[in-house]
Amino acid sequence: MLNFSVKEADILFEVLKARRDVRGNRFLSKPISEEHLDKIFQAALHAPSVGFSQPWKFVSITEEAQKQKIFNIFIEENEKASELFKDTIYSDLKLEGIKEAPVNIAVYYSQKEKAILGQTSMDQVGEYSVVCAIQNMWLMARALNIGMGWVSILDSEKVNAVLKAPKDHKLIGYFCLGHVSEFLDSPELESLKWEKRKNKEEIIFKETF
Amino acid sequence: MLNFSVKEADILFEVLKARRDVRGNRFLSKPISEEHLDKIFQAALHAPSVGFSQPWKFVSITEEAQKQKIFNIFIEENEKASELFKDTIYSDLKLEGIKEAPVNIAVYYSQKEKAILGQTSMDQVGEYSVVCAIQNMWLMARALNIGMGWVSILDSEKVNAVLKAPKDHKLIGYFCLGHVSEFLDSPELESLKWEKRKNKEEIIFKETF
Repeated sequence: MLNFSVKEADILFEVLKARRDVRGNRFLSKPISEEHLDKIFQAALHAPSVGFSQPWKFVSITEEAQKQKIFNIFIEENEKASELFKDTIYSDLKLEGIKEAPVNIAVYYSQKEKAILGQTSMDQVGEYSVVCAIQNMWLMARALNIGMGWVSILDSEKVNAVLKAPKDHKLIGYFCLGHVSEFLDSPELESLKWEKRKNKEEIIFKETF
Repeated sequence: MLNFSVKEADILFEVLKARRDVRGNRFLSKPISEEHLDKIFQAALHAPSVGFSQPWKFVSITEEAQKQKIFNIFIEENEKASELFKDTIYSDLKLEGIKEAPVNIAVYYSQKEKAILGQTSMDQVGEYSVVCAIQNMWLMARALNIGMGWVSILDSEKVNAVLKAPKDHKLIGYFCLGHVSEFLDSPELESLKWEKRKNKEEIIFKETF
């Protein structure tokens, strides 16, 4: 059985802290090697999944025409969002990297209609398994010095149509990946004071709330 | 800017592969040190969150009386689940470690009613941020040689009542943590052939499904 050393635990912690949500103003056009991309997918496939159901599907997108269609969906949704944040810096923020990133990956949840061990009381744990896979990819990418960004300002149904997703598949997240000019030292929305970092006292409780 | 070496990326990959869902038959009663528990929470707090909203709350549970109440909820839900899997090995499987694990942690999603940057089109990305924090905890725990297991066979509303969760809080996951007698070499449900490991060809697509 593998016992990790303090030094190895420290390396994991450094990766966790250095991971950033990367947008189009930091991506380089340099392609991601097949070897790196494979490692990122392998990281996903080692995620935990309820009842070992592995309910994940991935679509990698590199063609300009596909990216442009997704980008158009972003623009439409982002115009609606801009309205909600009108007296803020929102419209100055770069919130995606669809066209700049050499690789985009759409991550889906898909589960056959059968009872899954562990999913009988809290059904959403199936989708949550897919999110665990996403976080594994994000960390693996960072350790390979590859940036990844989550684009959530999208209409899922329109994305499904572009990617020809089967009807029972649910889009969990859409990601941009690529080498970067830099990883910021801290989350951009923290540096810009969009939101404050929360104190542990506000969020960690003992025995009950 | 931190550039990770191939060796460091390999260490992350080892941690990803060695992480297991640990149940009560592997937990030791040895307490988790405050230092280790703090490190696991720090890992959570470095997770990505939509719009830097950090919509997570954590309740750590160590008192026997609290654990017993949660265990009773598990028993009730698991009896229902057993019916669905009756001609299988289901009832022989140990599916939680609530009482054996020295620490239980309930993880919640809580978000004030305001527009969150990035959450205006796909609302569930708030909950998904919390799951990213969970995966960070799981990996950090493993790197510290501490086991963690997800207990999903629970009625959330009953857990909320035991933990006195505010009405607008949503239970995302309930976890058991402790030192272990062993980490299995492969997922137990894989070794038992409950489910087969999927091939990459079934789950990774190019450009469209």
